[in-house]
Amino acid sequence: MSKKYVYTFGAGKAEGSATMKLLLGGKGANIAEMSNLGMPVPAGFTISTDVCTEFFENKGQYHDEVKIQIENGIKHVEEIMGAKFGDPENPLLVSVRSGAAASMPGMMDTVLNLGLNETTIKGIIKESGNERFAWDSYRRFVQMYGDVVLDMKPESKEEDPFEVMIDQIKEKKGITLDTELTPDDLKELVALFKTEIKKRTGSEFPTDPWEQLWGSISAVFGSWNNPRALTYRKLNKIPPDWGTAVNVQAMVFGNMGDDCATGVAFTRDPATGENKFYGEYLVNAQGEDVVSGARTPQPVNETTKSDPSHKTLEEIMPEAYKELEGIYKKLEEHYRDMQDIEFTIQKGRLWMLQTRSGKRTAAAAVRIAVEMAKEGLINKEEAIMSIDPEQLDQLLHPTFDPEADKNVITTGLPASPGAATGRIVFHADDAEEWAERGENTILVRIETSPEDIGGMNVAEGILTALGGMTSHAAVVARGMGTCCVAGCGELQVSYKDKTMTVNRKVYKEGDWISLDGSKGEVIEGKVPTIDPELSGDFGELMIWADEVRKLNVRTNADTPYDSNVARNFGAEGIGLCRTEHMFFEGDRIKAVREMILADDEAGRRKALDKLLPYQREDFYGIFKAMHDLPVTVRTLDPPLHEFLPHEEQNQEEMAKELGITAAEVKVKVDSLHEFNPMLGHRGCRLGISYPEITEMQARAIMEAACQLTKEGVKVYPEIMIPLIGTKAELTNQKEVVVRVAEQVQQEMNIKVNYMVGTMIEIPRAALTADEVAEEAEFFSFGTNDLTQMTFGFSRDDAGKFLKEYYEKGILTEDPFQTLDQTGVGQLVKIAIEKGRKTKPDLKIGICGEHGGDPKSVGFCHRVGMNYVSCSPYRVPIARLAAAQEALYEEKQLSKTSDLRV
Amino acid sequence: MSKKYVYTFGAGKAEGSATMKLLLGGKGANIAEMSNLGMPVPAGFTISTDVCTEFFENKGQYHDEVKIQIENGIKHVEEIMGAKFGDPENPLLVSVRSGAAASMPGMMDTVLNLGLNETTIKGIIKESGNERFAWDSYRRFVQMYGDVVLDMKPESKEEDPFEVMIDQIKEKKGITLDTELTPDDLKELVALFKTEIKKRTGSEFPTDPWEQLWGSISAVFGSWNNPRALTYRKLNKIPPDWGTAVNVQAMVFGNMGDDCATGVAFTRDPATGENKFYGEYLVNAQGEDVVSGARTPQPVNETTKSDPSHKTLEEIMPEAYKELEGIYKKLEEHYRDMQDIEFTIQKGRLWMLQTRSGKRTAAAAVRIAVEMAKEGLINKEEAIMSIDPEQLDQLLHPTFDPEADKNVITTGLPASPGAATGRIVFHADDAEEWAERGENTILVRIETSPEDIGGMNVAEGILTALGGMTSHAAVVARGMGTCCVAGCGELQVSYKDKTMTVNRKVYKEGDWISLDGSKGEVIEGKVPTIDPELSGDFGELMIWADEVRKLNVRTNADTPYDSNVARNFGAEGIGLCRTEHMFFEGDRIKAVREMILADDEAGRRKALDKLLPYQREDFYGIFKAMHDLPVTVRTLDPPLHEFLPHEEQNQEEMAKELGITAAEVKVKVDSLHEFNPMLGHRGCRLGISYPEITEMQARAIMEAACQLTKEGVKVYPEIMIPLIGTKAELTNQKEVVVRVAEQVQQEMNIKVNYMVGTMIEIPRAALTADEVAEEAEFFSFGTNDLTQMTFGFSRDDAGKFLKEYYEKGILTEDPFQTLDQTGVGQLVKIAIEKGRKTKPDLKIGICGEHGGDPKSVGFCHRVGMNYVSCSPYRVPIARLAAAQEALYEEKQLSKTSDLRV
Repeated sequence: MSKKYVYTFGAGKAEGSATMKLLLGGKGANIAEMSNLGMPVPAGFTISTDVCTEFFENKGQYHDEVKIQIENGIKHVEEIMGAKFGDPENPLLVSVRSGAAASMPGMMDTVLNLGLNETTIKGIIKESGNERFAWDSYRRFVQMYGDVVLDMKPESKEEDPFEVMIDQIKEKKGITLDTELTPDDLKELVALFKTEIKKRTGSEFPTDPWEQLWGSISAVFGSWNNPRALTYRKLNKIPPDWGTAVNVQAMVFGNMGDDCATGVAFTRDPATGENKFYGEYLVNAQGEDVVSGARTPQPVNETTKSDPSHKTLEEIMPEAYKELEGIYKKLEEHYRDMQDIEFTIQKGRLWMLQTRSGKRTAAAAVRIAVEMAKEGLINKEEAIMSIDPEQLDQLLHPTFDPEADKNVITTGLPASPGAATGRIVFHADDAEEWAERGENTILVRIETSPEDIGGMNVAEGILTALGGMTSHAAVVARGMGTCCVAGCGELQVSYKDKTMTVNRKVYKEGDWISLDGSKGEVIEGKVPTIDPELSGDFGELMIWADEVRKLNVRTNADTPYDSNVARNFGAEGIGLCRTEHMFFEGDRIKAVREMILADDEAGRRKALDKLLPYQREDFYGIFKAMHDLPVTVRTLDPPLHEFLPHEEQNQEEMAKELGITAAEVKVKVDSLHEFNPMLGHRGCRLGISYPEITEMQARAIMEAACQLTKEGVKVYPEIMIPLIGTKAELTNQKEVVVRVAEQVQQEMNIKVNYMVGTMIEIPRAALTADEVAEEAEFFSFGTNDLTQMTFGFSRDDAGKFLKEYYEKGILTEDPFQTLDQTGVGQLVKIAIEKGRKTKPDLKIGICGEHGGDPKSVGFCHRVGMNYVSCSPYRVPIARLAAAQEALYEEKQLSKTSDLRV
Repeated sequence: MSKKYVYTFGAGKAEGSATMKLLLGGKGANIAEMSNLGMPVPAGFTISTDVCTEFFENKGQYHDEVKIQIENGIKHVEEIMGAKFGDPENPLLVSVRSGAAASMPGMMDTVLNLGLNETTIKGIIKESGNERFAWDSYRRFVQMYGDVVLDMKPESKEEDPFEVMIDQIKEKKGITLDTELTPDDLKELVALFKTEIKKRTGSEFPTDPWEQLWGSISAVFGSWNNPRALTYRKLNKIPPDWGTAVNVQAMVFGNMGDDCATGVAFTRDPATGENKFYGEYLVNAQGEDVVSGARTPQPVNETTKSDPSHKTLEEIMPEAYKELEGIYKKLEEHYRDMQDIEFTIQKGRLWMLQTRSGKRTAAAAVRIAVEMAKEGLINKEEAIMSIDPEQLDQLLHPTFDPEADKNVITTGLPASPGAATGRIVFHADDAEEWAERGENTILVRIETSPEDIGGMNVAEGILTALGGMTSHAAVVARGMGTCCVAGCGELQVSYKDKTMTVNRKVYKEGDWISLDGSKGEVIEGKVPTIDPELSGDFGELMIWADEVRKLNVRTNADTPYDSNVARNFGAEGIGLCRTEHMFFEGDRIKAVREMILADDEAGRRKALDKLLPYQREDFYGIFKAMHDLPVTVRTLDPPLHEFLPHEEQNQEEMAKELGITAAEVKVKVDSLHEFNPMLGHRGCRLGISYPEITEMQARAIMEAACQLTKEGVKVYPEIMIPLIGTKAELTNQKEVVVRVAEQVQQEMNIKVNYMVGTMIEIPRAALTADEVAEEAEFFSFGTNDLTQMTFGFSRDDAGKFLKEYYEKGILTEDPFQTLDQTGVGQLVKIAIEKGRKTKPDLKIGICGEHGGDPKSVGFCHRVGMNYVSCSPYRVPIARLAAAQEALYEEKQLSKTSDLRV
């Protein structure tokens, strides 16, 4: 049997199904599924992603078998639709659309109305009884074909030869709207377009529908590797070898007249998650018109209508709406997930064009998951798996303080929630450029388009004048978790002047504004923020997650304030408390500098004595905030020169303060200079050179712990030695800590449960973890440094070349964000294996930033760590990720983050 | 049965043997062996090193069993010697000496004449018939006991309370020599000594011989951990847990009169290796007198006599000499190695006190090994194993140019060969201090003592006014491979003025002198040097080594000159040719800077075009010098800022030269600044950012290779990409290299055998070597960087704390000198295993500096590398080390470097 390349659908059945996404793409698989479910789907066929792969392998050539199967596909459509491809009387028109396994909205190309030529148009005119519609369809087809297949698509609309010609005709006739063009105008345009095409390409515009079809299929396959698609895949981590499928489908028209419409809808509110059917539509329009934002769409139903002047689909086409209602309910029940659907109504008849899992805000995702579980549509475990942990980040950041004075200058649609403050820019490129120099920006556009993706990704927030809740800006912003206010009608944007005007007030590029994406508010200037609260659905979901996860989740916190924030987020202890952060505050830095400048141990001890009460107080506060939970305190880590000023003027100030000469300060600074401080005199190496520092810190920790114990507070200090590379280093520092700890307990006449362990952040420590574990009572992976040393990258310097590495595909993920499981992960595994060989019960955690990255949390679970530790705001993300990994391991449940890639 | 702690010897038999060095120490094991061989050894017993270990474990206490066995040991000696410990009539006197498994000359303590007190001295007077001898022995015993057991040994002789008293008596009596002291003077001194001891220690000097014995044994054990011994062990990498044995032996006296003598001898010349019995002795003296250099010793025989006024032992004690001759031959035959022996003649009777493998110069080691093999005493393989490869370094360095003008100001004994130039210092401390700031020094001393060990180790050469070929200075210098001229009689040294005077000319501290240790010449100022020649015995030994070794040995060379030097030393190719070294010469640096300053690719290419002919010429020369052998060329490695000036003045000069402003230069320098350049934009990361650099280098390599191939020269370029951490990096750079290489071959219409491989120097590359090997045609371990990243040490910065690490025992070896097999070595093994899993025949070598370190070479052999690559001067060392490892593996032969530790 020959390999199957083409899968047909239509008339209540299909060769494919929803499970075949990798082969048929998301669109193709779901159309097949809808067809199987007996829903009204225009007949068609899907050319599989295998053909895409072979297309690139064979440099644009197709196997004969592919050709045969496509020809049969067209026959299949002809039969069902009762029309014939290229037939002058009753011609079949088709659309050719891309459809990859992962949604890549607007990134690849589409050709509509294919099959039209000077002959078949007559059949369409006759059949539709609408000459203008027919010529407009032909005009659109030629234009689209020229853009997509013949590669005439320009960078900007202003340079589009077709748009220029349309504008010229409109000018000539003194009209402003496309709809005012007459059939003759459109006919003239078709002729002009064809002439221009001949001029530019040297060939006649193809009249043979088959030539049109093959050209379009190849163009859509080719668009898999266009620059926009490449960028999108990189941003969304979609493997380049997946390829796209191509869907060839009979055309249905929402623009044949006022008994036609087209729309998109969500089975639940994608912004809030509320269980109500939520959609927008336009009468007498094609799908592109709804999402482009050129006309403001209307709400589909009464429930979601906000403006009394709006006309709902429910009102004007009640039958079609009723059918749609039946379908959306069935789809949600069938897919057991909120769906994003597209439909067209042609002369009163409803056609389903697409269904897919709907993109949603984090808040919506949580609400939908929890409510679906309560409705019994899914179970708790599926609810947990349905949330992308990374997306929760949206819910875990500060929102605008409701008490703050806000000058709301206008409101738009609350398209993507969140609170953003930044400086106005008007072009995506500018947003990228400003972001590179560290500026927060708000990207203000009339409407956005797929070309703007880069700038939208770096902006703090997006504001558009046109477009609805399902506009490009809204959909993309929600996907990115970026705050967005869309369709803000009062906004006048001038790209030329780089200004936006609201109620006659002009705002220039660079001015500060704030956006409240949850309310749709545009606010002048900056607005103070407050911390999020975790309750309701979110809190419930977290309880469900905690019931199944096996990893503990701790936090990295250096202050009682952070400790409290993290505790509220569910942190089960502190995995990393960096003592050096405490060295900078107030008077302390003076004592620190005295210590560094001291000529001998006696001098250092004198200065350390001044630091001791401060450190003790710090630990007292943190231990108290974290009562009943363990707190891992790391001894001094950074090189000493970080505590000295490097500018001459500051050195002079410091000298004056300490009563010495600036020259003395400079000599010390110079003597501490290192070529590679990352690999220099820091971490345990400091404590080995100056045991009195470790002594002071151990004393401060233990005095605080003993005091609290006396007060009846339960404390579990875990003293952690950084930058261990050999067992002997740990032996040396542990001796100091234990000696002081025992002494303090004796002095204060009380016992405290304390441990001494080590960071594993030097490759050698991982490789010799069996030896290190002889001394260590716990391990904590410092994967930031471990990544730096395993890759030989300095995080401070690598920015310069890592950007190129992503562009050239040498790295696909930032190893400082997601743990490199292939390389660094091997060291982690080796260390765990060897460490537990020595001490089977060794407590092992991670305190690098990877502890808050969901993929890395999954890895930590799989390699058998006891806990992850992350920044306070990422604690819930880690809790959810840990739960998902546990479920995945136990029940092989799929993770949404895998499915929705 | 109880554990055996004490091993007796004497009267032609012994409980121990030479194989029991770890238990009995070198001295004890060899005395036992001599006793078993029927040689005249004063009876005695050895207390094993186990007792030393237990002594430290039990804080200075002994098991009862030890006490019993020692008491029995004394009985054994009493029986054989026919004398009784503490007996007033016929008292037994004993010596108590240390003796560790490894020779540690002069590092630990000794007590002689033990058993003397106011009663037993009468027996000695009666028995010896020499009252002066008896009181002198008593005086020495009390002094030694005070120094060693009662811890009264001062830092310098001038502060020694006993020496002060001796000087006072001499002054009072107007005499200058110790020998002029009368029995009454000595008796008075003994009394004065005892009073001083009482005063300082609060206790009477012990009169009970058993108390004396236990005190001495404990003191000798205790001396295992004195600071000198600790330093020596660290320098010589002797494990601290070995411990020392203690030898208690009946005293024999070389100082009882003119029919007595004492001497030390080597069975072959320790400086040249010549097969002649070579020794020195003194009539009427104790052993210390010979080695201390206080009296100039006489040659033992006519063959080695150089001064007609000298009296040889052969002349004055022909019978004893003849017996000694028989013994030395028997010992060399028995041990199959050159021996260093000590003997004493008491009233005409020869006693053997010690035999051990003799320390020798590298030249002597080679000659002895080759000659012994030819004599049939050992076989070729044993000859190979008998040389410490590290020691060959002495033979591989330049010697003074014989054509050079030399102002020889005086000559002394050629105590340790080599050529040294440096600035005069007079104290060991100064030598250390000067060395730290990078000064080359010559340490000039009247005589040296064990306290000077640190300074001797860092000085370029050692010059002494007193002492013979077996003096402390000579023995230690030879062991260290440091050039030494000893016993330079014309030299007057004033420590006070810090001057040395030769023939009335005064040389001050800091003046430059040169020493020719092979000729004994002291030369004014600096002398030019020439390269060594490798022929004769050395060449023969190398041929033998090459017959057995399996590892290839290549060299690291960047110029045709270095290539030739290495080729003469037997290099079988270049393992690392660093192209960047070529970037600095002449006009090139200008083009390099132009390239760096260029704003775009076009500008860079223009500058690179200027560099191309230079690089091609360089490679042409190197490939030609290395014809028929492979040459590994590494593409550009260092960060670009290394090629720009950092001082303002130099930036201005550069700006002028390039016709731009200094500000532009500064901007570029600043933009290239990195926080951790070691982990920054360097290695393949440069080639990925600027493929045109890799292109230029690949072109230069291939054009040179093609040209030479056309000329009939066989070339094997191996192009090596540095700093690979991921396979994708190598894929990227290999594509560039291969593309250019194919292009050049086509242009020049000739084929060249070339390979593209990679350095393994980033931990991640080692961990993912299976993937990297998919692209790499060879691996070369860059263990310098691999060590830096695995330890997290920057070599440039680690100096500050590594010193402390050695002092605190956290590291015992410099990981940049000897490969850290425990940590870094694991990555090497992982990489080899994984690399060969992908490509079973993968060629693998090492090009870090470890490639010339014998221990590391052994490791490279064991893990299955194909070659090591090292600096030209270390090629023969690597060849020998590789041969030894092969023999060790094949035949389990012991390496001298293990035995002689």
